[in-house]
Amino acid sequence: MRISELSDRTGVSIPTLKYYLRERLLHAGETQSATRAVYDDTHVERVRLVRTLVDVGRLSIDRVREVIDALEHPPASRHQLLGAVHEALRPHQASEPPTTEAADRVRALGLADCAESRASSQLAQALSAAAAGGWVVDDATLRVWQRAMRTVAETDVAEELGRMAPGDALRYAIVGTVLTDPVLLALRRVAQEAVSAERFGSTDADGPPA
Amino acid sequence: MRISELSDRTGVSIPTLKYYLRERLLHAGETQSATRAVYDDTHVERVRLVRTLVDVGRLSIDRVREVIDALEHPPASRHQLLGAVHEALRPHQASEPPTTEAADRVRALGLADCAESRASSQLAQALSAAAAGGWVVDDATLRVWQRAMRTVAETDVAEELGRMAPGDALRYAIVGTVLTDPVLLALRRVAQEAVSAERFGSTDADGPPA
Repeated sequence: MRISELSDRTGVSIPTLKYYLRERLLHAGETQSATRAVYDDTHVERVRLVRTLVDVGRLSIDRVREVIDALEHPPASRHQLLGAVHEALRPHQASEPPTTEAADRVRALGLADCAESRASSQLAQALSAAAAGGWVVDDATLRVWQRAMRTVAETDVAEELGRMAPGDALRYAIVGTVLTDPVLLALRRVAQEAVSAERFGSTDADGPPA
Repeated sequence: MRISELSDRTGVSIPTLKYYLRERLLHAGETQSATRAVYDDTHVERVRLVRTLVDVGRLSIDRVREVIDALEHPPASRHQLLGAVHEALRPHQASEPPTTEAADRVRALGLADCAESRASSQLAQALSAAAAGGWVVDDATLRVWQRAMRTVAETDVAEELGRMAPGDALRYAIVGTVLTDPVLLALRRVAQEAVSAERFGSTDADGPPA
C-alpha cells in the first residue's frame, strides 16, 4: 500500500508518518522509485504500537525508540524480557538515585537488590520520592499493597508467554502493561469511592445542615 | 522571608517562583514596597505541593491550577472531596468518551454509573482505550484486579480524613494519590518479576544452550 493508505488505515496523518520514518520509529517501506515506497501490514501494526505508547503510555519519542530497539533485538531469555519491559516503561522523572533507607526497605520486603533489578530500583525510587514529598508508606501498608499487586501479577504473567517468540512476548508484555496500568489506577479510585461512601456516607451528611 | 529565602528553602529558582506567582499557582506575598514582598510558611508548603504535582504527578500547569483552585474552595462533604481528587488527577489523554460496551462492563462490576462518578468514567475510558489498543481485559481478570484494588483502597481512605478540615483532607488525598500511584505500579513490576522467575526460571534456562 502507499503511504496515503497507511494513513487511512491507521488514522495517523502523512506528515506524522514521515516523522516516524525519519525518527526510525517506523521501518522504511519498499522503495519503488525515488519518490515512492510501498508499505505492508507490519507497518500498520508498528504505527498502532507507536500510537499506543505515545497516547496511552505517554512515552517520549526517545523512549518509544528504545522500545522499538528492544523489540528488534529481544533478549533470548523469558525472564530477561521482563527486565527489558521494565526498563522501557520506567517512570518519566529523571529520578535521583533512591535513598539507602528506601533500598533497605525494598530488601526487607524480600525483593531483589536494586542493583540487580530494574523493578526493585523503581520501587525504591518511588518510595524515596514519596518520602521526599512528605509521604511515608508504613510497613504494614506496604505489605498489604505487595500482596494485592502479587495477585495482579499472577494474572499478568500468562503461561502463553512461554510459548511465544521473544519479540512477540516482549510486545505483548509492553502493550499489556501500558494499556492496563490505567485500568488498575482507575480501579483504585472506584474502590476509594466505595470505601469512602461506606465510611463517610455518600450524601452530604457531614456538610452544612440543609 | 524574602523571595531569595523562599528559593533557598524550597530549592526552586527565583524565576520559577515568579512564574508560579504570575500563573496563580502561588499566592502573592505581603507587599512591603513596590519591589519587595515577604513570604511565609504557607508559601513554602504551596511551592512543595506544586513541585510534587509537577515532578511526580506530571501534571500540566493548567491541571495544577485546577488542584489549587479546588484546595482553596473545597467541597463541604467528605465524599465529594474524593470526586474533586479524581477530577484533578484524571489521566492526561484527551480521551474520547468511553464506548457503551465499556460503560456497561463498569455497571456489571456493581459500580456507580459513569455519568455520576468521575472514577467510574475513568475506568470505562481505560477499558475502552485498552480495547482500542487490542487488549481486552476479561471479566475474570477484572474481578481479581477489583478485589486487589479494594484492599489497597481500604488503606487509602484513612479514618483521620473524617476529622480533617476539608482543604486539609483534599490536599492529603491528592498528595497521597500522586505519590503512591508510582509505588503501586512498581510493586506490580516486582511481583511480575517474582512470578516470572517462578514460572520461567530466573536464569537463561530457556535461552540458547551454553
